[in-house]
Amino acid sequence: MAITRKRAFYLILIFLIIIDICLLAYVTFYPVDSSLKVGAWTFDLILCVVLWIEFIYSYYHCDDRKQYMRDNGLSILGMLPLNFYFLRALRLIKLVQMIKLYVLARDSEKAFTRFLKRTYLDKILFVAILFIFLLTVLIRIVDSDIHDLATALWYIVVSATSTGYGDIVPTTVSGRIVGIIAMVGGILIFSTLTAVISSIYVSRISRDTRDDLESKIEDLTLEVSKLNEKLDELKNEKD
Amino acid sequence: MAITRKRAFYLILIFLIIIDICLLAYVTFYPVDSSLKVGAWTFDLILCVVLWIEFIYSYYHCDDRKQYMRDNGLSILGMLPLNFYFLRALRLIKLVQMIKLYVLARDSEKAFTRFLKRTYLDKILFVAILFIFLLTVLIRIVDSDIHDLATALWYIVVSATSTGYGDIVPTTVSGRIVGIIAMVGGILIFSTLTAVISSIYVSRISRDTRDDLESKIEDLTLEVSKLNEKLDELKNEKD
Amino acid sequence: MAITRKRAFYLILIFLIIIDICLLAYVTFYPVDSSLKVGAWTFDLILCVVLWIEFIYSYYHCDDRKQYMRDNGLSILGMLPLNFYFLRALRLIKLVQMIKLYVLARDSEKAFTRFLKRTYLDKILFVAILFIFLLTVLIRIVDSDIHDLATALWYIVVSATSTGYGDIVPTTVSGRIVGIIAMVGGILIFSTLTAVISSIYVSRISRDTRDDLESKIEDLTLEVSKLNEKLDELKNEKD
Amino acid sequence: MAITRKRAFYLILIFLIIIDICLLAYVTFYPVDSSLKVGAWTFDLILCVVLWIEFIYSYYHCDDRKQYMRDNGLSILGMLPLNFYFLRALRLIKLVQMIKLYVLARDSEKAFTRFLKRTYLDKILFVAILFIFLLTVLIRIVDSDIHDLATALWYIVVSATSTGYGDIVPTTVSGRIVGIIAMVGGILIFSTLTAVISSIYVSRISRDTRDDLESKIEDLTLEVSKLNEKLDELKNEKD
Repeated sequence: MAITRKRAFYLILIFLIIIDICLLAYVTFYPVDSSLKVGAWTFDLILCVVLWIEFIYSYYHCDDRKQYMRDNGLSILGMLPLNFYFLRALRLIKLVQMIKLYVLARDSEKAFTRFLKRTYLDKILFVAILFIFLLTVLIRIVDSDIHDLATALWYIVVSATSTGYGDIVPTTVSGRIVGIIAMVGGILIFSTLTAVISSIYVSRISRDTRDDLESKIEDLTLEVSKLNEKLDELKNEKD
Repeated sequence: MAITRKRAFYLILIFLIIIDICLLAYVTFYPVDSSLKVGAWTFDLILCVVLWIEFIYSYYHCDDRKQYMRDNGLSILGMLPLNFYFLRALRLIKLVQMIKLYVLARDSEKAFTRFLKRTYLDKILFVAILFIFLLTVLIRIVDSDIHDLATALWYIVVSATSTGYGDIVPTTVSGRIVGIIAMVGGILIFSTLTAVISSIYVSRISRDTRDDLESKIEDLTLEVSKLNEKLDELKNEKD
Repeated sequence: MAITRKRAFYLILIFLIIIDICLLAYVTFYPVDSSLKVGAWTFDLILCVVLWIEFIYSYYHCDDRKQYMRDNGLSILGMLPLNFYFLRALRLIKLVQMIKLYVLARDSEKAFTRFLKRTYLDKILFVAILFIFLLTVLIRIVDSDIHDLATALWYIVVSATSTGYGDIVPTTVSGRIVGIIAMVGGILIFSTLTAVISSIYVSRISRDTRDDLESKIEDLTLEVSKLNEKLDELKNEKD
Repeated sequence: MAITRKRAFYLILIFLIIIDICLLAYVTFYPVDSSLKVGAWTFDLILCVVLWIEFIYSYYHCDDRKQYMRDNGLSILGMLPLNFYFLRALRLIKLVQMIKLYVLARDSEKAFTRFLKRTYLDKILFVAILFIFLLTVLIRIVDSDIHDLATALWYIVVSATSTGYGDIVPTTVSGRIVGIIAMVGGILIFSTLTAVISSIYVSRISRDTRDDLESKIEDLTLEVSKLNEKLDELKNEKD
């Protein structure tokens, strides 16, 4: 029951964060009148308060506070009600965390938890999101040809996936340095993703191999236990 | 014998579907007069009826109907005689399924079946085809610079393989979102493919390791069973 | 001694093939006067005769002729003295084969032979070379914007590595189909290469695991053999 | 204590090399007046002397001088006080080596040392840096459109990551050959990186499998050793 209530609560939070992200994205990327902007910012502020309450509550009720801070400390970034509009995109981090918590609340999904723990997939996603947003802000500041954040984001994604259409190309040294970081970093992130997907297949093959060998060892164990019984009999006969 | 007849039947269907796809592609991408179009559509309609008969027949004669729907349910998409010309490309899904059925009908190809089951290669191919076609339709609708489906398909493939010539670049926010989905999705699909190819090598290495260890354990089991015999002898001597 | 002579012979052949390839490439890609062309073609013709003699000699002196044809049959493509200048690039296949034979002649390099056999690296390289040359010829024929083979090769390599500068982009449907084959095929080839490199690391890890487990099993075997000895003693005492 | 002092020394060297690289990069890529240039070159010369002293000292105090040359021989390239400004970038190799030495000096980081030894990550990084710088110099010499080293470096990175914006494209045959080497070499380097990341996951899975099997075998060994004891008892009773 507690689990059902918890999950319902997380589901509502996920829903609210998605609405919040869409609203803020709309307000950021499209020209809108200020009343809508104020509305979106108020909604965002209220959501931040709710997220902080949930965070503090969870912190005081968890088993191991140090472990909790290590696991969720970074998600604090996703709860800052900063007025600098772009940093609100960090709310995405909070979304990832909430989805993770929602999944974790399902006690039947232990395999998924183990999978996350073994592959660090949530950490990789987190780093990827942070990486893309930091570089987006950076290239926007550094390159004078990129006039808005939507274009900056487009440039970074096109570079990080090593697609490189060439519609936007930095020409200054500092812009090119950001570009190189985006390209190399992007390859590293996607390489890690390839490695994670590979590890799924490998772990299955490894499990099969282990099962085969274990059954062989069990045969041996059976043989040895027979030996044990016979020896016991021999001893008993003697006594 | 039944297998030979089954395989011949599937081979004919594969042949018909390939002709159908080529005809429809020709009619879609090249300007032709309407009489040829009507001819192609009639041929397509007849093929769809044949495919439906095969599908319903197989459904009523299979061992586990639920399992059948789970395995082949998606291929229904490949049998729709939709007039919206592009969706006919979904006939490709049916082609993949037919080739799979043809291969499965060969009882000697159990290794291949196991390989498909372990790597989900057919599912990945299916997702890749669906992914490319959905995005092709989407970018055609969303981007005003792309006037035909051939160009849309070209743009999506160029983006999904992260080649990015830059001859076609979306400039609107919605077009760029489709582009980002194509780029990231394409990398994920090709990463999974890399993982599948890796798993082939790994499974071979793993098999070698397992065989080495198994033979060692078997030697040991033999040794222990000899011991068992000796103990039996000892016991018999005593009695 | 026979091995040393064999290796010297292969080394000379490798040297001659490299000179031949460079000469033919120079004659193909740069404008030269016809006397040099005739010279290059004569040299190439003589080399082909030498290669055929080596091939027929090896065929009649090998242990298993069927196996020989299966292993080296494709290299026949690299010995055709075709006048169509581009196909002479197939001489590269012969180069790969010669290097392989040179390495195989070193009896100490058994690990390398095993590596080639396990990873099919030579087959992958062969397929890659053939793939690139076939597509180069195809795009040259199909696309009217590409006027020479050097540009065609450049386009295919830029596409197959998914770099996609966008300096040359096919605009016809048939040119784009060749482009798509180059992009997707290139990814598959480089994915397989990634898998091969992965398998080197995995095989090392797997070997460590196997060694660890084998030493444990050996401990167990020792324990069991002790049991054996004791049982023998017991039996002897009794008699 | 010796370790702490060693580490402090390496830390200072790392710090000095970073300053040196930044200074030289600034002097190379930006137009500055000659007094600053002379300053930077003097600083670089002094650093080279310090590095040579460290190198010779370590060489005379190491356990195995042949092994030392094999491990660190290449880093000599990073200590040459060449006046040709670009080759000073080779100082990066020295940086990588210093960071490695710094890490190795921490006795607690044996797992990291083993990781480096198993994956050759430092060697791969070294090859990657050398590869990029050699090609940068080469394309600068070969291609007449590329007027400075910053642009040459940009072109090589854009090609080696297979991004290919298309803002700079070689048009001569020799420029294109360098481009092809950059593209194919880049893919190989990043493939190897993917393989290294994969191997981290695989080694963890492999360790789990091994631990499972080892504990099973150990249980069995215990069982057999108990059997041994019983037999001893039986024997003693008899006597």
